[in-house]
Amino acid sequence: MIRINENYSKLTASYLFADIARRVGAYVAANPGRPVIRLGIGDVTEPLPPACIEALHAATDEMAARATFKGYGPEQGYAFLREAVARHDYADRGCPVEPDEVFISDGAKCDCANIQEIFSSDLRLAIPDPVYPVYLDTNVMAGRTGASVDGRYEGVMYLESTPGNGYVPAIPDAPADLIYLCFPNNPTGAVATRAQLAAWVDYARRNRAILLFDSAYEAYIRDPEIPRSIYEIPGARDVAIEFRSFSKTAGFTGVRCAYTVVPRSLKAWDASGREHALHPLWNRRHTTKFNGTAYIVQKAAAAVYTEAGRRQARKLTDFYLSNAQLIRSAMAKLGLPCSGGENAPYLWVNTGHDSWEFFDLLLTKAQVVCTPGVGFGRCGQGHVRISAFNSRENVVTALDRISAALA
Amino acid sequence: MIRINENYSKLTASYLFADIARRVGAYVAANPGRPVIRLGIGDVTEPLPPACIEALHAATDEMAARATFKGYGPEQGYAFLREAVARHDYADRGCPVEPDEVFISDGAKCDCANIQEIFSSDLRLAIPDPVYPVYLDTNVMAGRTGASVDGRYEGVMYLESTPGNGYVPAIPDAPADLIYLCFPNNPTGAVATRAQLAAWVDYARRNRAILLFDSAYEAYIRDPEIPRSIYEIPGARDVAIEFRSFSKTAGFTGVRCAYTVVPRSLKAWDASGREHALHPLWNRRHTTKFNGTAYIVQKAAAAVYTEAGRRQARKLTDFYLSNAQLIRSAMAKLGLPCSGGENAPYLWVNTGHDSWEFFDLLLTKAQVVCTPGVGFGRCGQGHVRISAFNSRENVVTALDRISAALA
Repeated sequence: MIRINENYSKLTASYLFADIARRVGAYVAANPGRPVIRLGIGDVTEPLPPACIEALHAATDEMAARATFKGYGPEQGYAFLREAVARHDYADRGCPVEPDEVFISDGAKCDCANIQEIFSSDLRLAIPDPVYPVYLDTNVMAGRTGASVDGRYEGVMYLESTPGNGYVPAIPDAPADLIYLCFPNNPTGAVATRAQLAAWVDYARRNRAILLFDSAYEAYIRDPEIPRSIYEIPGARDVAIEFRSFSKTAGFTGVRCAYTVVPRSLKAWDASGREHALHPLWNRRHTTKFNGTAYIVQKAAAAVYTEAGRRQARKLTDFYLSNAQLIRSAMAKLGLPCSGGENAPYLWVNTGHDSWEFFDLLLTKAQVVCTPGVGFGRCGQGHVRISAFNSRENVVTALDRISAALA
Repeated sequence: MIRINENYSKLTASYLFADIARRVGAYVAANPGRPVIRLGIGDVTEPLPPACIEALHAATDEMAARATFKGYGPEQGYAFLREAVARHDYADRGCPVEPDEVFISDGAKCDCANIQEIFSSDLRLAIPDPVYPVYLDTNVMAGRTGASVDGRYEGVMYLESTPGNGYVPAIPDAPADLIYLCFPNNPTGAVATRAQLAAWVDYARRNRAILLFDSAYEAYIRDPEIPRSIYEIPGARDVAIEFRSFSKTAGFTGVRCAYTVVPRSLKAWDASGREHALHPLWNRRHTTKFNGTAYIVQKAAAAVYTEAGRRQARKLTDFYLSNAQLIRSAMAKLGLPCSGGENAPYLWVNTGHDSWEFFDLLLTKAQVVCTPGVGFGRCGQGHVRISAFNSRENVVTALDRISAALA
């Protein structure tokens, strides 16, 4: 008799986006003349950079002729893209990353979800609250947690992001083995300073732990003092895996390309205390359960590193950041404390209300949809996430309505 | 202290393709004037169908304008593609499959590799020999096997494909819970009759087991009596998951699109004997660890179902099958028994020699590279796999050389 993976039964169903859709649907049905603006969505809205469009057309033409047709590529990605990443995202910034430490994939979500497979099932897990749910859910599925009790899984060390710590969790007193960090953060928009990241690297080194550093929003950092990569911290190559994506950097959410850096110097141990390099383990996982990212997509990603591509991608992130600035100003005028939006595309508003009450308030009084913070974890209570990913027109109209409704 | 997933240590390193590369490299270095033809590769060589090229260009243009730009799509795939699959690949052939039972992905390798995650870790596993290594390796990684002893993992029921059973494994005497089947087969090229598949469905129903049916090569079936889908067998919707791919159907090995069918009627059980539907489990896995296939790629896949696309894709498979026919004839003239190549792109030659000896013979006497069958499992000993994926010119030249060398 075939049996299921019973860890799936522990997953608490996320009703967040379903609940939002239900409430918005009910409001729209009852108020057909009042169009709603969605400021909750974490998806880009602007077209792909022209350099990427050109690259896609050119690569498509290559697929049309026998002499230039590409079948299976290397599962880890083509050398042209791995080399561009290593050079532009790392070497040029003083971070030593080799091309063969860069694993190209079809998304940071997949990479963040899959990475835990190479580790033992009984490790001590540290996960932020609030959090991107994939970190947590994939570990529940893999059996690394107990049951969910009062909205928290037993056996997980929650790293609390609160107004008191500026939404950057404190270093824990107890040791953990696998630690998820995300800066610039989703959902809080918080960034970590060099000193804060150095403290995490030191903690990981002391505890022989691994940091999983999600840097999907690094392209939004404008403050030169804020590290864009964990590898800007000395010693990080011994303890950190980094995830990056073209999704929010160059509008690739529907194109699907990302990468993960697994330094050759990373180590983990077996039960008998013997040391193992992680690079061959991830290579084995990646080549066994994945078959490479589409050639045309990798060509489009490589175009982001051309001079034109970099200029165009920068223009995109500048645009979203200018939306974020408008939102920050509006919140400040309303006296609502808010983090993020300066080096991140998300704003985390401390509403002084219950998350869902404030959501309902914005929906019914301003016809604006945000994301209730409590949907990202217990520490999100009282907050809402507002996204800068939208057209200027929508942002301006939404802010006018919010200001009028809350003034 | 962070620990590794020690199941990875059980994996026997596959030296097959590395060994081939080493032997070919050494031969070429020693014989620079004798160009080698590779007939071992399982990758397509002909360009994409023009309908797919057109669709890629058109979809790329959509990504260039704000009004038509596509960001995140549904993780399970766009309705236009799920509906096209359900209609053309199933409904039109009398198989009842609903669009929401079709999960679009970036490759059948990923799907075959990931599907085991929704099942318990201690199930009884049945896997063919010879076999596509992904089925086996992903279960080793998940801890479902013991150690490798004499080239076989403890705790796995091997389904032997031999000349005696025409390379279609017999129904086991003992019960298994999860059974991998692949027809038309890689590497043997064997196909299963309706009666043979019905026996497997019956076996699975009796044992409350699940069949994982890899149908990646169904487009090569020309015999109308051979089922192209497991769902052509009555009762299969209660016990079978089917994997399909555009890779070998329409030349998508470098484009990356596939799908998996998980019928809503499929059930599995928990330790307490309670029944669970598999569809929501796979949906949870797919939406948590995957973020959808690129929009432009899904548009290209949908173009395979247009009238022009179907004609062009058929032409591609006809072309490779005509290569296969030439190879079959040449082997027959040489008196070498051979399966496959009639409803499959692979030929499985029973050489009467050790696999590697025959490989060396072809390499040194004919400058032709094949794949030693023993690399796919113990039952592959004595065989080699020859692939029909090549240009006509290469196939004809290779066969002339083989015929001269072995005559």
